[in-house]
Amino acid sequence: MEAGPPGSARPAEPGPCLSGQRGADHTASASLQSVAGTEPGRHPQAVAAVLPAGGCGERMGVPTPKQFCPILERPLISYTLQALERVCWIKDIVVAVTGENMEVMKSIIQKYQHKRISLVEAGVTRHRSIFNGLKALAEDQINSKLSKPEVVIIHDAVRPFVEEGVLLKVVTAAKEHGAAGAIRPLVSTVISPSADGCLDYSLERARHRASEMPQAFLFDVIYEAYQQCSDYDLEFGTECLQLALKYCCTKAKLVEGSTDLWKVTYKRDLYAAESIIKERISQEICVVMDTEEDNKHVGHLLEEVLKSELNHVKVTSEALGHAGRHLQQIILDQCYNFVCVNVTTSDFQETQKLLSMLEESNLCILYPVVVVSVHFLDFKLVPPSQKMENLMQIREFAKEVKERNILLYGLLISYPQDDQKLQESLRQGAIIIASLIKERNSGLIGQLLIA
Amino acid sequence: MEAGPPGSARPAEPGPCLSGQRGADHTASASLQSVAGTEPGRHPQAVAAVLPAGGCGERMGVPTPKQFCPILERPLISYTLQALERVCWIKDIVVAVTGENMEVMKSIIQKYQHKRISLVEAGVTRHRSIFNGLKALAEDQINSKLSKPEVVIIHDAVRPFVEEGVLLKVVTAAKEHGAAGAIRPLVSTVISPSADGCLDYSLERARHRASEMPQAFLFDVIYEAYQQCSDYDLEFGTECLQLALKYCCTKAKLVEGSTDLWKVTYKRDLYAAESIIKERISQEICVVMDTEEDNKHVGHLLEEVLKSELNHVKVTSEALGHAGRHLQQIILDQCYNFVCVNVTTSDFQETQKLLSMLEESNLCILYPVVVVSVHFLDFKLVPPSQKMENLMQIREFAKEVKERNILLYGLLISYPQDDQKLQESLRQGAIIIASLIKERNSGLIGQLLIA
Repeated sequence: MEAGPPGSARPAEPGPCLSGQRGADHTASASLQSVAGTEPGRHPQAVAAVLPAGGCGERMGVPTPKQFCPILERPLISYTLQALERVCWIKDIVVAVTGENMEVMKSIIQKYQHKRISLVEAGVTRHRSIFNGLKALAEDQINSKLSKPEVVIIHDAVRPFVEEGVLLKVVTAAKEHGAAGAIRPLVSTVISPSADGCLDYSLERARHRASEMPQAFLFDVIYEAYQQCSDYDLEFGTECLQLALKYCCTKAKLVEGSTDLWKVTYKRDLYAAESIIKERISQEICVVMDTEEDNKHVGHLLEEVLKSELNHVKVTSEALGHAGRHLQQIILDQCYNFVCVNVTTSDFQETQKLLSMLEESNLCILYPVVVVSVHFLDFKLVPPSQKMENLMQIREFAKEVKERNILLYGLLISYPQDDQKLQESLRQGAIIIASLIKERNSGLIGQLLIA
Repeated sequence: MEAGPPGSARPAEPGPCLSGQRGADHTASASLQSVAGTEPGRHPQAVAAVLPAGGCGERMGVPTPKQFCPILERPLISYTLQALERVCWIKDIVVAVTGENMEVMKSIIQKYQHKRISLVEAGVTRHRSIFNGLKALAEDQINSKLSKPEVVIIHDAVRPFVEEGVLLKVVTAAKEHGAAGAIRPLVSTVISPSADGCLDYSLERARHRASEMPQAFLFDVIYEAYQQCSDYDLEFGTECLQLALKYCCTKAKLVEGSTDLWKVTYKRDLYAAESIIKERISQEICVVMDTEEDNKHVGHLLEEVLKSELNHVKVTSEALGHAGRHLQQIILDQCYNFVCVNVTTSDFQETQKLLSMLEESNLCILYPVVVVSVHFLDFKLVPPSQKMENLMQIREFAKEVKERNILLYGLLISYPQDDQKLQESLRQGAIIIASLIKERNSGLIGQLLIA
């Protein structure tokens, strides 16, 4: 699925292995251990991945190679690395990049704290880059920190949404068949042109499939295939499964993949990827307030309205109390959206507490975190000049925390005595909060919106 | 190109034919007349189009058939109809929809003022729907308002970005070869699975192409093919070019298409389409002010900053004077973004003038129009309470004009005596204006933003 149900497709932090943290992943890891017998403890080097990233992305129509194009200010390849390194049974990830992009790649790994990555020089073609990656994994390499895996996954730098489930499927199938790859139904009919540019024949769509990534191979099979294969194959070949078939007589098992395995190829694919990522990190909102005791607390009223107004969004609430212990957990669980209710004072006391907690965490490393600082005011009681002070303050805060990838907005919700009017202004506030979270518009940070 | 250079890909109003209004279109029409001899006057029925729209869009993973999925609140198929009807040498557009969607389709045609559209009942398969469309065009139909065209274009309801250039190419090629279709390079390698779900063989990517739309045929050729073809073809076939080849021995000419011919198939494609459309209607901003004489006018200062801050965006300025005659032209030329500078008074006098002009035009029928009502205030001189009044006012205006598809935002730009500070607040204002235009966020209408 492209944009899963709430939570299911929530992106993962790099570094700490997530397997077992969530249902799906847990099943996956468990079955890998049983089916494929690669209990991490016993066969630490069982599975590695090779990621060719030497392409120049000419189809994108932009100067930057597409794997380095930014999505929410982070290069596409970083999302793909994140998707691979969250799978703890993948021990090594070898990325093949061109010499000129080697430094860029190193800085990406450092900035986004990617783990278990090794870099090799890309070849002039995709196959040559993959071959270089395999050589780095082969034991016959001198001074290689890497050791030969039982199974190697080959994936694309520009397929950022690969899930642990499909990686497990191809690895398991590769152990049984020697080779395996993800496939998808064809969207368009495939035809063959004759020399004069006319239709020669068209293929029956139902009998063919698009070969996608990831693919997996017994290392010895694919390494042998690359050592045997001709220069023509290395220059013009596009299909690793074909090499295994041609040079090792290994018939790859084909595994149905999900739609989100698609390859970011054109500019429109970058747009699509950005929308998918925005949607995935907008599936949970945490309403933060100074206390959890008082059920009549206006924060809880707002929480209720958010729940009723925003379908498909998980709305929780947390108190800043207890040294924010529960809040720490929410941050660890990667909630990227916070609505901070300031009531005790008219300034940003609660918001500032939350901001310092976020700044101490590494939550903002991978995705921009939205913080909406909510203030309730009965316009009859508080002089508008008060608002101007708030406004000026929040603009400074916003500039400051933007440096740390936090998008801060202010929201004034009018608090009339009339209950019905209050409900209406809360509803209005919920709509504004939803808009801010959906768009993550950095041009509007520091603005004080009014509901 | 997916999102063309400023202007080049600007969407067209339906109804009035645009050919000749812009360079590209003019060339196109001219060469159609010379190359293909279909001077509209002489052969009014030379070219028609059939649009199968009976699909249920199961791949989209949403209940609504994808051709009816909304983009900026307008159904996808309306964008495709708009792309076809802007081409004045396409005389009739026959759309095949299922009985249950017939009324939906009629209301779409009415609401978005589509012209030259005829509806027929879709068949249970794509081929049967196309056949029904062709039958409606064939002269042997009783009570048909339509007459048989020389050439028929077959396109998809879910390929909204088709340009006149490629339509001309396939029509011209069809006149010469009897059939023609757009093709694209393959993105993935195509493979054939064996019965046991393993790789049987893979096709050499370079020797195959994806068959896309539009396609064009001499009407007699494709109609003959459909009349001859087997039930199996009608049930399971996917390729019209193949029918022409199989039943009329007509070898279709293959025409390289641009990337934006792609088919909206998955949810991610809807995201991509929305981003492309937003980008296309954000390529021009008109700064509206009460006078054009005064070059020192703060509106002109803002215009200059907008020009320097926003690359790839055409920034013009117009005066509301002369009964706004020039402004009328800008509206006719489909500028979807207005920055209205209010200086003479602190209320919304100029903005209201602009809003009524927009409401009288039909500019807002197809796309949401952004209006940013800009107010300059020296915070030292004007009491903040003044702002609150403005704010309350603009919220009401915004609600009102939203009904007519106008997104109204307020922007207060501080006007300090210090020139450098003024430049900075103008720059800040330009960033906010750019954000509002890029996102077209209806959740934030009526807000008063501060720069």
